[in-house]
Amino acid sequence: MDAGAAVAAVAIDVNADVGESFGRWELGDDAALMPHLTSANVACGFHAGDPLTLRRTCESAVEHGVRIGAQVGYRDLAGFGRRYIEMPAADLEADVLYQLGALDGIARAAGGQVSYVKPHGALYHAVQSRSTVARAVLRAVAAFNDAHGVELPVLGQPGATFLDVADDTGITAIAEGFADRAYRPDGTLTPRSEPSAVLTDPTDVAAQAVLLAHAGDVRSLCVHGDSPGAPALAAAVRQALAETGIDVRPFT
Amino acid sequence: MDAGAAVAAVAIDVNADVGESFGRWELGDDAALMPHLTSANVACGFHAGDPLTLRRTCESAVEHGVRIGAQVGYRDLAGFGRRYIEMPAADLEADVLYQLGALDGIARAAGGQVSYVKPHGALYHAVQSRSTVARAVLRAVAAFNDAHGVELPVLGQPGATFLDVADDTGITAIAEGFADRAYRPDGTLTPRSEPSAVLTDPTDVAAQAVLLAHAGDVRSLCVHGDSPGAPALAAAVRQALAETGIDVRPFT
Amino acid sequence: MDAGAAVAAVAIDVNADVGESFGRWELGDDAALMPHLTSANVACGFHAGDPLTLRRTCESAVEHGVRIGAQVGYRDLAGFGRRYIEMPAADLEADVLYQLGALDGIARAAGGQVSYVKPHGALYHAVQSRSTVARAVLRAVAAFNDAHGVELPVLGQPGATFLDVADDTGITAIAEGFADRAYRPDGTLTPRSEPSAVLTDPTDVAAQAVLLAHAGDVRSLCVHGDSPGAPALAAAVRQALAETGIDVRPFT
Amino acid sequence: MDAGAAVAAVAIDVNADVGESFGRWELGDDAALMPHLTSANVACGFHAGDPLTLRRTCESAVEHGVRIGAQVGYRDLAGFGRRYIEMPAADLEADVLYQLGALDGIARAAGGQVSYVKPHGALYHAVQSRSTVARAVLRAVAAFNDAHGVELPVLGQPGATFLDVADDTGITAIAEGFADRAYRPDGTLTPRSEPSAVLTDPTDVAAQAVLLAHAGDVRSLCVHGDSPGAPALAAAVRQALAETGIDVRPFT
Repeated sequence: MDAGAAVAAVAIDVNADVGESFGRWELGDDAALMPHLTSANVACGFHAGDPLTLRRTCESAVEHGVRIGAQVGYRDLAGFGRRYIEMPAADLEADVLYQLGALDGIARAAGGQVSYVKPHGALYHAVQSRSTVARAVLRAVAAFNDAHGVELPVLGQPGATFLDVADDTGITAIAEGFADRAYRPDGTLTPRSEPSAVLTDPTDVAAQAVLLAHAGDVRSLCVHGDSPGAPALAAAVRQALAETGIDVRPFT
Repeated sequence: MDAGAAVAAVAIDVNADVGESFGRWELGDDAALMPHLTSANVACGFHAGDPLTLRRTCESAVEHGVRIGAQVGYRDLAGFGRRYIEMPAADLEADVLYQLGALDGIARAAGGQVSYVKPHGALYHAVQSRSTVARAVLRAVAAFNDAHGVELPVLGQPGATFLDVADDTGITAIAEGFADRAYRPDGTLTPRSEPSAVLTDPTDVAAQAVLLAHAGDVRSLCVHGDSPGAPALAAAVRQALAETGIDVRPFT
Repeated sequence: MDAGAAVAAVAIDVNADVGESFGRWELGDDAALMPHLTSANVACGFHAGDPLTLRRTCESAVEHGVRIGAQVGYRDLAGFGRRYIEMPAADLEADVLYQLGALDGIARAAGGQVSYVKPHGALYHAVQSRSTVARAVLRAVAAFNDAHGVELPVLGQPGATFLDVADDTGITAIAEGFADRAYRPDGTLTPRSEPSAVLTDPTDVAAQAVLLAHAGDVRSLCVHGDSPGAPALAAAVRQALAETGIDVRPFT
Repeated sequence: MDAGAAVAAVAIDVNADVGESFGRWELGDDAALMPHLTSANVACGFHAGDPLTLRRTCESAVEHGVRIGAQVGYRDLAGFGRRYIEMPAADLEADVLYQLGALDGIARAAGGQVSYVKPHGALYHAVQSRSTVARAVLRAVAAFNDAHGVELPVLGQPGATFLDVADDTGITAIAEGFADRAYRPDGTLTPRSEPSAVLTDPTDVAAQAVLLAHAGDVRSLCVHGDSPGAPALAAAVRQALAETGIDVRPFT
């Protein structure tokens, strides 16, 4: 195997949150961001995303050949899904199933379909450490998969409960890294309380994206979508990946 | 053709609203009502029905061999979907599509699927006379049908805009009658402002059910589900239909 | 001091949750319960209670000479305020202040006013052990008190963070006991996981009410309001207290 | 009377909508707009405005000496209160009363108080032509006024049902004009369907503000607050009014 082939074997997905407007309130520049993504984490209406926004977002994803992921979250418009809610597992499981069905219906009407699942906000964090929460979300994914004859994978942080439990239960677990967050030597994220936690310079973000792609521990790179500079960061990431010969393609 | 065969040719469906609890608030005795139905109009979360309630309701429907219909409504928990909301058609269309997908996902996880669509409350009334509203709902149904390769029919009152427009747009229109509402000689419902508008005596309700079934203008009989006596009325209707040799079966 | 005076010195308040219907969904038999109360914990719209329900509930309280308490809760209709929500203290403080103002406006239009504050559900439990949550709620009460020139007390369980912090910050803390919950020898409640945790026999509930009143550790007795037998239990409590010469009167 | 006194007699108020963010979603540049206002129409949580946003908005208004008005609206976050909702008058009245109390509690904690009422969006339009709706809103204002010993006026368009009914029922009616909307010769607004309906050039807006102030038919000028250029327009209006010797002061 020659060196060229080895380099070509490096591939990565680029994902970001979209569809997070709600009625009159706009959030994120989805139109500018979408062309730089291979996977779009589309809100499902519980933490953000009115149905018309979701529909237009799915249509845009389909138009750009971007995979649609269900960004399921807590029922919490006031807190944008960033508030951990202690709720019965059966309720959470049904809430996730409801959101998966809703977005998939919207996505299919747009010519696509839900291709993966990524919990949002407080739910994203809860599934990393609370196995009861992780299991409830994964039961919903399994129920959806069984009922629709699909095998939706889940997207999350490597080394966390969520992906471990997914593996155990036969659901494909995809690990993601953050192009715009600083990592500590042990591979964990620098806490946001530290000044250097978030990378804002496109050059730094792009460099980290290339590093993460080469390290091979993650199959997707997350770019945060709701900051004003998000499209520029995503563009810088895509350009750097292209320039270093890394293949950018969806993980599904 | 002998007389027995002629009698057997009379068939009717019995539908009622279920799944209208919301969290701590219970409404209707769905467990007692379900065995008497052939079609269950299940709420979709916008006017009533938290996801866990919807899931259990769909499981119960599947268990009893009852068809699941999507009882789509306005986003209006405070008004139980009984408030007409003047909203852009594109928003309404997306709201209906979202609800259809959500309930279908829940229904499929329960081993069933959404088999028909019946607007709820103020939306039920709006589609009867406002063609813009009717068309928005029907576009959502058509989009769902096309995307899923199904042909969901819609259920509504005979002679109204909704069913006419459905016919025009290639969506099957099913007419329903009300076993527990008085009719005027011209076939329209006696307004609720009149004292005799609602039938409460099981004998009267059962007799009217038989009459409506024989008249042949409707393919389904609606029994209101949220009154305390609803299961008894539904049972009386089923017994009367059985005793007169009318076949009770779903229209789908 | 003669015996008569000593007996007369024993006094207790009887409180229950009311106003917890929401639109079409009714909960609790407030009309039957209200005459047995001296203090009514009225929902404030975040976990339950649409504004018209709140207005009618306040009118009923005023009519019966019952004090109106603000039953503030988390923004959580789907979970009836029983889900702990991890949210920023400043948001919680503003949420509580908003609810206090809303209910006070309704109560004043009904000829009354908010006379005390009792957190509901998960918030009731959170303020007992989490001092950050307790302090946020108490800052809201203090802000309301200062702005309106009133001194609303708070109602809660004895020996918990909430009442301790209230004492520290100059807000009157009122301890309550549960007439229909079993206590362990150390004075804590028997966990609901044990079969004997909830008393359902009116005789037992009434006897415990008398015991708690005589023990003198609490100034109010809570009777749960959302079970079908609530009015009968409250009536039994009132009768037993009357028969043993205990004065039943509001703590405000 | 000298010329100086005559000029000084021309006075006008400048109002705009603020406090319309909701959680993560920001709308309008309230911080930049507030210094140019004399009256701030603060959302009340039903169509926009989470409690913490309302609190900060009221604090900012108090800091700048700006009057706080209650911008009451329909319960409609998804539609931003711009959807007409056909609801029972008693429910609407209670909804408005609830919002008035909530905002007044927040405003008083910020050192201010609600000084007037201006319906928002679809409710603003509904009270202009539908007397049932206008009367429901005004009953709520009257109930609030009676209970609090205040005399809140209402703000609306001249010549409409709302202000007429207010006059009839003893509530002070304040007429407002729109600095950034074109008027037809008969004094009505140019419909938004016409290209010239909205003035966007600060010079035009300022000139119209001066004209309206001199015409004397309105006591307040509304500047729309949720467009990016709103603060600049408001500043231009204030400067033009100052340069022509028009006194800008609140109507309350």
